[in-house]
Amino acid sequence: MKAYRLEKGVQLYRMGDPYNTEAVIETPMTEIDEKEVRYLKKALAGKGLRFTYTMDRDDIIFGLGENMGGINKRGKEYVSFCTDDYEHTEGKKSLYASHSFFIVDGRDTFGVFIDYPGKMKIDAGFTHKDTLEISVPNGDVDIYIIEGKSKNDIVKKFRRLIGKSYVPPKWGFGYQQCRWSYPTATEIEKVVLNMRERGIPCDTVYMDIDYMTDYKDFTVDETKFPQFPSFVEKMKGMGIKLIPIIDAGVKIEDGYDIYEEGMEKGYFCTTADDDTFVGAVWPGKCAFPDFLNPDARKWWGGLYKRLTDQGIEGFWNDMNEPALFYTPDHLEEVIENVKSSQGENLDIYSFFKFKDMVTGLSNREEDYKKFWHVDKNGQKINHYDVHNLYGYNMTRAASEGFLEIRPDKRTLMFSRASSIGAHRYGGIWTGDNKSWWSHILLNIQMMPGLSMCGFLYSGGDTGGFGDDADSELVTRWTQFSIFTPLLRNHAGGTRPQEPYSFCGDTAAYIKGAVQLRYALLPYLYSEFMKARRDDTGYMSPLAFEYDDKRSKRIEDQILCGDSLMLAPIYTQNARGRYIYLPEDMLCWRGKSPEDREIHMLRKGDHYLHVGVDEIPFFIRRDRMVAMGKVLNYVGEEMLRELNVIVNLDKLAKYEFYDDDGVDTNLDNQSILKLRVGYRGDEVVAKVEKTYGETEIVVVNFEIHTNENQVIHKKVYL
Amino acid sequence: MKAYRLEKGVQLYRMGDPYNTEAVIETPMTEIDEKEVRYLKKALAGKGLRFTYTMDRDDIIFGLGENMGGINKRGKEYVSFCTDDYEHTEGKKSLYASHSFFIVDGRDTFGVFIDYPGKMKIDAGFTHKDTLEISVPNGDVDIYIIEGKSKNDIVKKFRRLIGKSYVPPKWGFGYQQCRWSYPTATEIEKVVLNMRERGIPCDTVYMDIDYMTDYKDFTVDETKFPQFPSFVEKMKGMGIKLIPIIDAGVKIEDGYDIYEEGMEKGYFCTTADDDTFVGAVWPGKCAFPDFLNPDARKWWGGLYKRLTDQGIEGFWNDMNEPALFYTPDHLEEVIENVKSSQGENLDIYSFFKFKDMVTGLSNREEDYKKFWHVDKNGQKINHYDVHNLYGYNMTRAASEGFLEIRPDKRTLMFSRASSIGAHRYGGIWTGDNKSWWSHILLNIQMMPGLSMCGFLYSGGDTGGFGDDADSELVTRWTQFSIFTPLLRNHAGGTRPQEPYSFCGDTAAYIKGAVQLRYALLPYLYSEFMKARRDDTGYMSPLAFEYDDKRSKRIEDQILCGDSLMLAPIYTQNARGRYIYLPEDMLCWRGKSPEDREIHMLRKGDHYLHVGVDEIPFFIRRDRMVAMGKVLNYVGEEMLRELNVIVNLDKLAKYEFYDDDGVDTNLDNQSILKLRVGYRGDEVVAKVEKTYGETEIVVVNFEIHTNENQVIHKKVYL
Repeated sequence: MKAYRLEKGVQLYRMGDPYNTEAVIETPMTEIDEKEVRYLKKALAGKGLRFTYTMDRDDIIFGLGENMGGINKRGKEYVSFCTDDYEHTEGKKSLYASHSFFIVDGRDTFGVFIDYPGKMKIDAGFTHKDTLEISVPNGDVDIYIIEGKSKNDIVKKFRRLIGKSYVPPKWGFGYQQCRWSYPTATEIEKVVLNMRERGIPCDTVYMDIDYMTDYKDFTVDETKFPQFPSFVEKMKGMGIKLIPIIDAGVKIEDGYDIYEEGMEKGYFCTTADDDTFVGAVWPGKCAFPDFLNPDARKWWGGLYKRLTDQGIEGFWNDMNEPALFYTPDHLEEVIENVKSSQGENLDIYSFFKFKDMVTGLSNREEDYKKFWHVDKNGQKINHYDVHNLYGYNMTRAASEGFLEIRPDKRTLMFSRASSIGAHRYGGIWTGDNKSWWSHILLNIQMMPGLSMCGFLYSGGDTGGFGDDADSELVTRWTQFSIFTPLLRNHAGGTRPQEPYSFCGDTAAYIKGAVQLRYALLPYLYSEFMKARRDDTGYMSPLAFEYDDKRSKRIEDQILCGDSLMLAPIYTQNARGRYIYLPEDMLCWRGKSPEDREIHMLRKGDHYLHVGVDEIPFFIRRDRMVAMGKVLNYVGEEMLRELNVIVNLDKLAKYEFYDDDGVDTNLDNQSILKLRVGYRGDEVVAKVEKTYGETEIVVVNFEIHTNENQVIHKKVYL
Repeated sequence: MKAYRLEKGVQLYRMGDPYNTEAVIETPMTEIDEKEVRYLKKALAGKGLRFTYTMDRDDIIFGLGENMGGINKRGKEYVSFCTDDYEHTEGKKSLYASHSFFIVDGRDTFGVFIDYPGKMKIDAGFTHKDTLEISVPNGDVDIYIIEGKSKNDIVKKFRRLIGKSYVPPKWGFGYQQCRWSYPTATEIEKVVLNMRERGIPCDTVYMDIDYMTDYKDFTVDETKFPQFPSFVEKMKGMGIKLIPIIDAGVKIEDGYDIYEEGMEKGYFCTTADDDTFVGAVWPGKCAFPDFLNPDARKWWGGLYKRLTDQGIEGFWNDMNEPALFYTPDHLEEVIENVKSSQGENLDIYSFFKFKDMVTGLSNREEDYKKFWHVDKNGQKINHYDVHNLYGYNMTRAASEGFLEIRPDKRTLMFSRASSIGAHRYGGIWTGDNKSWWSHILLNIQMMPGLSMCGFLYSGGDTGGFGDDADSELVTRWTQFSIFTPLLRNHAGGTRPQEPYSFCGDTAAYIKGAVQLRYALLPYLYSEFMKARRDDTGYMSPLAFEYDDKRSKRIEDQILCGDSLMLAPIYTQNARGRYIYLPEDMLCWRGKSPEDREIHMLRKGDHYLHVGVDEIPFFIRRDRMVAMGKVLNYVGEEMLRELNVIVNLDKLAKYEFYDDDGVDTNLDNQSILKLRVGYRGDEVVAKVEKTYGETEIVVVNFEIHTNENQVIHKKVYL
């Protein structure tokens, strides 16, 4: 083992010869004595290592990004292994991501990042409630231990290690409508017309797998999408961007140029014998681009040009764990086995063996062990050992491609599979969740962990992907998702789930929520861009700002940016909920940006009535929220007027960030400093432009004082 | 259609010629004009019928027994079709039971019971949020509409229709330990010693399928259980009853006398061609007793004697939906199909078809349509049309058997599958749940519905059957389950889940909870027996006693008997929870019967700190709870002293029921009337014996007054 110090409070323990995942960006480091290593006790465990830490009874664990469990991750076991599993039930230990950063908070408070590309286990007090145990199956691993003045400080140091988060175009903050599938241009147009007719703002509509010809990446089926470029253009004219899906697996088909080029250049993953590795996904047999190979990555990134040339400005990368429905070899084995069961009297053991054989065809670890990469050092590496890097490097390939194809404009890019490092290249969505009420809460609880791990641009499938949703579920879920950077309604194989597909007032309720999203965009975008710049959380656990015993264990309220606290409704038939306020807060409650009321709520516990059509949010003390106009789509109009609601105790300050939302060069940003305070008994509001140019001409302050006074101030720029 | 009036407020709409399920016991009825029919609008729907009711925005739906969804069932769709499905996720529409009674509460308040033995759908505002829709696929159905003075009154009238609930032995209220499996006598003895050594009370240990010889019903494997009767006796000497499982399917094996006798007498279900229907379960190919045939039922009931003769006093009937792993014919078809896939390039459609074919082998509706019953009228009936009666009539067979075999003593009997009617013959457990936190809440939410449907003796697998539990989950779940009539820790294929299998203080925490159960037994048993006698709820929604807007929508507090309100902790890492009190209540909070504190909490909202080792419960105004001594097992000592905690406002009354707990003749019961009130300023306590004999010699009252005074009174009998 070797030990290093990086910046103050950041130690690296390097065991053996770890694979360089490039999760951490170049950082100077000094070797230190391994005796300085704190917190984790190391032990050998077979060929691997085990690190343990004895937790105090009241220690809390925050982080771990996309994982099951609450905001407090304690009491569960997590397996870091990107997995295509569409049943996110409570017992699941792996989802699509490997986000192995967490903070232990309590007697000692410190962060841990396990930089390891293979399968690895974190037992957060599951086996023994007081034992945190990290198990790494081979001895080559980097573990970072991070100390700081606060949990926010620990996050900041970690995020500095891993580099800046991806920046989406501002229109990526608009409402997005998806379904598996709107399979034709006609279907997509119907969706757009439905949204526009009802005045529900919308920025994008998605193209799921059926837009392709036979599921061949980077093709567009001409029968379904005749004259595709002009359709893309037509949609843009209506304020809509189309976002096609790109899958990891490339169809094996003679004459399919991408397959043929990949074969010719040797860009696909291979078997131990250097044959092309074959696994089946949507189109049947596929080859898998070797995203660890820089040449293959460059080639792949260039392919997106085929669609950007037709006017496309954003993509989602899918199936990049990679998902394997089966490998032809193993399928044959299974079929042979099935045949041998013919005529047998299968009892409990033989029947379940039979069934498990078939249900176990997909995403088998044995199959992941059968394919190989050639990485940047020309080294042949078994996929299983670096499994978690696959989706990450597919996203990287795309992102590096965009830098070549359209260097000046931001491209929307998010992925299903990811590991830390991928946050620099794209966002993520949290995969194929369900239309379950518990998955709204799961979505809420996952967001702070995602921020901690650098995945700022993220969100869940609003309304749930699988299973049928009821109208109230979609309404309530949207009411939460309007605060997440990625706001996308997505479902597949279910009843229609668009806002207008439900009975009664549902569309009106959702319209009110989405309008609020657009009105809040100035604040949300500003907070997002500052969270990226400052390496802070876009969404954070309450505990990161309020360290009292009550706040630390709250599982259903989170912070959104620096000013807001959210307390969403996530249970069926509820007409209200409990809220704990760690300090006096201003409660904004309404059905839309216009139809709302604001009142001060005092520190402590409250039961808040919240109708199905109502959204509450809370403005922290001496904080403010900047709102704009409701638009049909982002950028429909310039932001000229800012409406700012202020919770004024002594002195409220806000740094308002804005930019044109598409330029990759962030120099075009503008910064306004807003201050509201007292001069004697008089309330004074100031706006100072400290950087760049702005189109804003007036800031309207609505100031709520501690004494329940409401004061309006206008400041012209 | 014909319409009838039964008792006041109870109407029956008879459509076509419904199958007599015997859910409803003989009741006089008078024909009325069908115009008198209220609430439901009828429409034809294909060969079937559709009944709709337009709900008010704030209407609530209570009931539906064993089903997903909250206490308020609105917003979901339910399919009444007993189903062996071990993934109780939110989207599931059917579990193991058909409990088609519910109350619509709001603008109109009325009960609906759909007496229908086949598959049937209740859309409780899922498709259209304001439309309740009942769909019956054929036109032969009895629908009862029940009006009453209150929701409790509606339940009472319904329960009068369906007859008195099953009475278990009192020791069935003890702590029960189960696992799939303790496969040998040695393993069972280890469990018992572990419980006794730690002083954790326990009354039964279960024998899951592995105790049998090759899964043959009513056999005991002699190598695993040598000299079984003396082992049973030895366990009884330690205060432990053994409870073997009985499966519905009978192994097809030459020489197995039960199979041969069933064949000879024609007691098994048949195919359309009158051959024996064959389906596979644990042992492989099985025949299925025709429980609708009274002769077969009588024969089956008699078989239990093989085990009662060896000292067994209780059973659980399982796999009686009936679960079908596969039918040999269909398995052949699937294998042929699988073979035809050999060498094919399976894409999305062909692969999922392939996989679904295998995962769909079990519990197929097509298979249920392939087998037939001969009922009491000698009529040949297709199983599919009367599917929900199978488990019900297996339980009935057992229960009627016990009446012959051991008429004087109660026999423990509960089942997995059930429909209304079965409640007269046995209890139920809620099937193969999971070690998920959400399943604690599901368990809580299901209990009131089960009471409404007459299934008083019921409970969930405490700690969760599938998936691995952590220590806190088992602790919290036990803290709730100590209030359910059936209190059984059960798991299968998971890490050990006995109270003593976890680290640290877990065993001590669970011991405290189980001790509290035994201390509360006088109250719990008294409430259970009165709920049976009076056709009231053992557990009820808060709304049944408190009709205010807040109480009606509470999903995580329920009433337990007449005196108590429960507010269990059901989330991981919680150290407290919110509670709404519709009136002043006495809060009992403690770690065990001895280590507790009691204080008055005022009407309104409270946040209550509750440590992992703590249990809170609430005593309603002018109510009391009667407690006894902690025992190692029920009946270890006579109940001579009663400790009664009283929440005294004006006048608190309680009717205390007791009996010897084993006699089937309930005449040996005793009734004490307890009264605590004021004479002037003085608090006065009285105990009056109004029926039978009692061993109780003294009642100790601990009286908490509205002014926070604590007064102790002793009353000698």
